[in-house]
Amino acid sequence: MKIVIVGASGTMGTYLSQALEKEHEVIRADRKGKDVTVDITAPETIEKMYQQTGTFDALICTAGPTWVGPWKNLNNNTFRSGVEGKMMGQINLVLIGQHYINPKGSFSLITGALTHDPQKNFANASAANAAVEGFVRAAAIELENGIRINAVSPTVIEDSPQYFPFFPGEVPVTMKALEFAFRKSVFGANTGQIIKP
Amino acid sequence: MKIVIVGASGTMGTYLSQALEKEHEVIRADRKGKDVTVDITAPETIEKMYQQTGTFDALICTAGPTWVGPWKNLNNNTFRSGVEGKMMGQINLVLIGQHYINPKGSFSLITGALTHDPQKNFANASAANAAVEGFVRAAAIELENGIRINAVSPTVIEDSPQYFPFFPGEVPVTMKALEFAFRKSVFGANTGQIIKP
Ligand SMILES: NC(=O)c1ccc[n+]([C@@H]2O[C@H](COP(=O)([O-])OP(=O)(O)OC[C@H]3O[C@@H](n4cnc5c(N)ncnc54)[C@H](OP(=O)(O)O)[C@@H]3O)[C@@H](O)[C@H]2O)c1
Ligand SMILES: NC(=O)c1ccc[n+]([C@@H]2O[C@H](COP(=O)([O-])OP(=O)(O)OC[C@H]3O[C@@H](n4cnc5c(N)ncnc54)[C@H](OP(=O)(O)O)[C@@H]3O)[C@@H](O)[C@H]2O)c1
Repeated sequence: MKIVIVGASGTMGTYLSQALEKEHEVIRADRKGKDVTVDITAPETIEKMYQQTGTFDALICTAGPTWVGPWKNLNNNTFRSGVEGKMMGQINLVLIGQHYINPKGSFSLITGALTHDPQKNFANASAANAAVEGFVRAAAIELENGIRINAVSPTVIEDSPQYFPFFPGEVPVTMKALEFAFRKSVFGANTGQIIKP
Repeated sequence: MKIVIVGASGTMGTYLSQALEKEHEVIRADRKGKDVTVDITAPETIEKMYQQTGTFDALICTAGPTWVGPWKNLNNNTFRSGVEGKMMGQINLVLIGQHYINPKGSFSLITGALTHDPQKNFANASAANAAVEGFVRAAAIELENGIRINAVSPTVIEDSPQYFPFFPGEVPVTMKALEFAFRKSVFGANTGQIIKP
């Protein structure tokens, strides 16, 4: 399978790339771009990325910038970080990518537990995650040629101890469990699902 | 109670205004603006609206434009309709309105069943609804001075028969049930809830 991973240089992306490249052709993308560059906040760079990758079987996105900080600083400007990044960035990866993906291909997007389990400082991520999840359910009934779409929604992950203090009481998700959630989305048959590792 | 209704001239807004004005001071707002004008896609007009209303006890929003149409025409541009309208429009009503609302006041936003129950042509609304619901849960743990926030999430409503064909199998919500859901949000004590009439 030819798998494009957007956000490949990040904490999740590095782990997933290494896990999947043993059996699959993995194309690593992000703004610095080991294999191909993309800035998901700029739709024209998304189109350009797909022109370079050519047709593919699966897209995994683990790039999802949001604004994190005190509520008093959340406003129409700071909110744009998650709107243009995690929300529209991922939605545009699908709206544009559907014209490049192979029949029966799949899109696996990243959201997070903040959709339903808010934490202080993360309202922008709660909204962006939820938007992506609403979109995933709707896109699943619209995409053609057997193309599937799911989101993976972990709580804080094992390899991000810097976030533990912001998620009191959350049992961190192991990287193995995260990998398996993405495997379920990419290699399973479900669509329109929010997969909780 | 002093209640600002944004979207007061619409199907829902007209019904709610008439129901609530018997016992409360209702201020009707929308782009044409019976009492005060606002374009929720333009944050500066929101600030101006609140300067005119002055402090208030409850904000109800039933204004939430989205893009409706065939999936093949959904792209980064058409998607903006719901992003700037139903999503950021309502989020900005809260982010700005929190500085004008009285202690123990409430925000009651509009979403809809499409969040979890997608229908063809409505992916933009599914994403915008979900974003607002994620935001509502997050804002509930951030807002101070006892200020509450909820969303009302109906399926297609009785007074909108033009939408019935797009919602096969959905039992329309009566206007009375819709009113009661908003009453629960405005006069109850819950916060961070998605109220299904
Ligand atoms: N870490 C957690 O505990 C956790 C838990 C739940 C959900 N999540 C969510 O999962 C996602 C990934 O988390 P992570 O910890 O792996 O993040 P990370 O380590 O910060 O990695 C982010 C990746 O995305 C890329 N990226 C950032 N902005 C981009 C843009 N505009 N265009 C293209 N690529 C971009 C980064 O590379 P460049 O900067 O070089 O472009 C990097 O490869 C985030 O959305 C986060 O909210 C994380
Ligand atoms: N009708 C249903 O069956 C149903 C079911 C579930 C959810 N919903 C949701 O409920 C909301 C209201 O539905 P409705 O049927 O009552 O809608 P509607 O009859 O079209 O009324 C919309 C109201 O919002 C105002 N408005 C529109 N754009 C605005 C803007 N940019 N700034 C300020 N005001 C604006 C309109 O007045 P002006 O145009 O004069 O500004 C009008 O007062 C929508 O978000 C819809 O998605 C509807």
